[in-house]
Amino acid sequence: MNRPPAKVGDRVEEIDTPALVLELDAFERNLRTLADSVKGRPLRVRPHAKTHKCAEIAKRQLAHGAIGVCCQKVAEAEALVEGGINDVLVSNEVVGTPKIARLAALSKRAHIGVCVDHPDNLAALEASGAKLDVYIELEVGMRRCGIAPGPAALQLARAIHRSKNLRFAGLQAYHGRAQHMRTMEERHAAIEAAAQHVFEMKRLLEKAGIPCPIVTGAGSGTYMLEVEAGAWDEIQPGSYIFMDVDYAKNEWAAPLPRFEHALFVLATVMSRPAADRAIVDAGLKASSVDSGLPLVWRREGLTYRGASDEHGAIEIAAGAQAPALGDKLYLVPGHCDPTVNLYDWYVCVRHDRVESVWSVTARGALN
Amino acid sequence: MNRPPAKVGDRVEEIDTPALVLELDAFERNLRTLADSVKGRPLRVRPHAKTHKCAEIAKRQLAHGAIGVCCQKVAEAEALVEGGINDVLVSNEVVGTPKIARLAALSKRAHIGVCVDHPDNLAALEASGAKLDVYIELEVGMRRCGIAPGPAALQLARAIHRSKNLRFAGLQAYHGRAQHMRTMEERHAAIEAAAQHVFEMKRLLEKAGIPCPIVTGAGSGTYMLEVEAGAWDEIQPGSYIFMDVDYAKNEWAAPLPRFEHALFVLATVMSRPAADRAIVDAGLKASSVDSGLPLVWRREGLTYRGASDEHGAIEIAAGAQAPALGDKLYLVPGHCDPTVNLYDWYVCVRHDRVESVWSVTARGALN
Repeated sequence: MNRPPAKVGDRVEEIDTPALVLELDAFERNLRTLADSVKGRPLRVRPHAKTHKCAEIAKRQLAHGAIGVCCQKVAEAEALVEGGINDVLVSNEVVGTPKIARLAALSKRAHIGVCVDHPDNLAALEASGAKLDVYIELEVGMRRCGIAPGPAALQLARAIHRSKNLRFAGLQAYHGRAQHMRTMEERHAAIEAAAQHVFEMKRLLEKAGIPCPIVTGAGSGTYMLEVEAGAWDEIQPGSYIFMDVDYAKNEWAAPLPRFEHALFVLATVMSRPAADRAIVDAGLKASSVDSGLPLVWRREGLTYRGASDEHGAIEIAAGAQAPALGDKLYLVPGHCDPTVNLYDWYVCVRHDRVESVWSVTARGALN
Repeated sequence: MNRPPAKVGDRVEEIDTPALVLELDAFERNLRTLADSVKGRPLRVRPHAKTHKCAEIAKRQLAHGAIGVCCQKVAEAEALVEGGINDVLVSNEVVGTPKIARLAALSKRAHIGVCVDHPDNLAALEASGAKLDVYIELEVGMRRCGIAPGPAALQLARAIHRSKNLRFAGLQAYHGRAQHMRTMEERHAAIEAAAQHVFEMKRLLEKAGIPCPIVTGAGSGTYMLEVEAGAWDEIQPGSYIFMDVDYAKNEWAAPLPRFEHALFVLATVMSRPAADRAIVDAGLKASSVDSGLPLVWRREGLTYRGASDEHGAIEIAAGAQAPALGDKLYLVPGHCDPTVNLYDWYVCVRHDRVESVWSVTARGALN
């Protein structure tokens, strides 16, 4: 693990860069905005920890009413349980003997859920003897994992229902692609279609006499649409705590609240080779560019134009205030989840001072 | 740090995934191919460790004739020195008091070089009292860091030459963009133009009576062009040991040798939701997509079509042999450097058995 790039009490200018900076005021407002947006509804909030990979953040989500968290990997679940979180849903299929054995071990230490979409995988979970909440992952238009509502899905539900160790916990119904559809109208249509899949599966289960305790899913870009569609009992927003350039490109309108940028990559100008160009020390290894380049925050006329492994090229518009060698710039990452995964530490800042440094507990927890 | 996904003696099928797999036979052939290609020439090889971030690999490069390695970050240099490498060039500008202090500390433990392109940065290096080899980074067509040949660059050289602690070691002249120009002709033209910048600067230095011991630069995609241009004394290839999808798209012809794919992401099929689709457990957090998607290795008719954070979607062509749930696939990463940076461990494989597990010593060494 790399050394923390700052210590409590440091001023922002003293933070070694590149660093992952969490602006605590904005982060805390995002926590409250989500809680307020679902207040009074019969709804469980299970934020997605794949975004932050951090037990400290999960604890603050629980303090704001979350009933647990979800994640995508057994290794993430292990790190979160180790960090004190005792209700974790792996909202993903867990395939392969060593991983299932680890999931089984973890299920003795915490309340653990997992998803299935294939009878062979279910048989392997069953054979492990683990006591698990099992959700059927439903295909709801994302074309990734998941099984369509129908006889095969029902057979899977029956098999879980019959199981001695496994508990049929319900349905995982997440439409990931819908999160990034730009207009409210497109997202609304996608979630409406997803809801029809959920209703269809619930009817099949009801007819078969299998209770479906929970339908879980939804992300930061759509969750109020799922809530209003009436088919979900639990939501899994992740990115709302941080926001990123990609999410900011979405149209945001009621019923969704607006979240603020709270996560930044702090970078230093390491070269000023030309009047119209500054080079910063944050490139591909400091900010994931899969969903677009970072944005220079609140510095008019400065545009992040290109990333190489360890460098970012900033274009300086004519007339803009040019940054000097050694100046620090805040960048908003293009995509928060894979950017967080590049760091060992969150440097948590309030009023330009480092208030705390949190470990990215599950950084690189791939397995 | 995450647990290693395999142990020595495991079969490939037993490796937990996703895992970064180094095929040792191909890797060792790449080491020899590079050494053979420059045999008998008055040339120093200083491979780029930003690619592998691993002291074990650096040692093998030294055993094949390298005189040291280079890297981009002080934290990488620290990890490499800690791992037993005693000659490291930070082929980059190091800006900011804490970083320069660490570089100064490191210079007491090993032979350390660094680049400059700005008098203020040089003054800060000088003030640190560090004993360093200092190279002027020359702009040679890359439009990133660097200073153009001319009076300002000469003044920088004079200032280094006058310094008591700092030693003027020569010029850093690297054309990164040229590495990925697809045709030999384009790369040849780019390196010829870069060579003219180097010759111009050498003439200025000679006229000023300042010896220029070493011109260093060049990458895996061009290095023999630099050698033949006659302006370089030292080459810095990095990716040659691994190769990736992006480099494989280049035209490879004499004077450059061909290197082989030696680095893979091993993934498991975790869902088979449709006849034409398999989902693997390796997405954006397992393989960097900045230079394109991974390639499915030696499985005809299987194409990696899309990556989300933790998933990869594999399209199965009609008639292709479809992988079953739990099957393992080798993926060639789109871009090796930022992919390696996602992992804590190399799983080194020979004849389908794990021969060793090496730490990615400088993983996430951003500062």
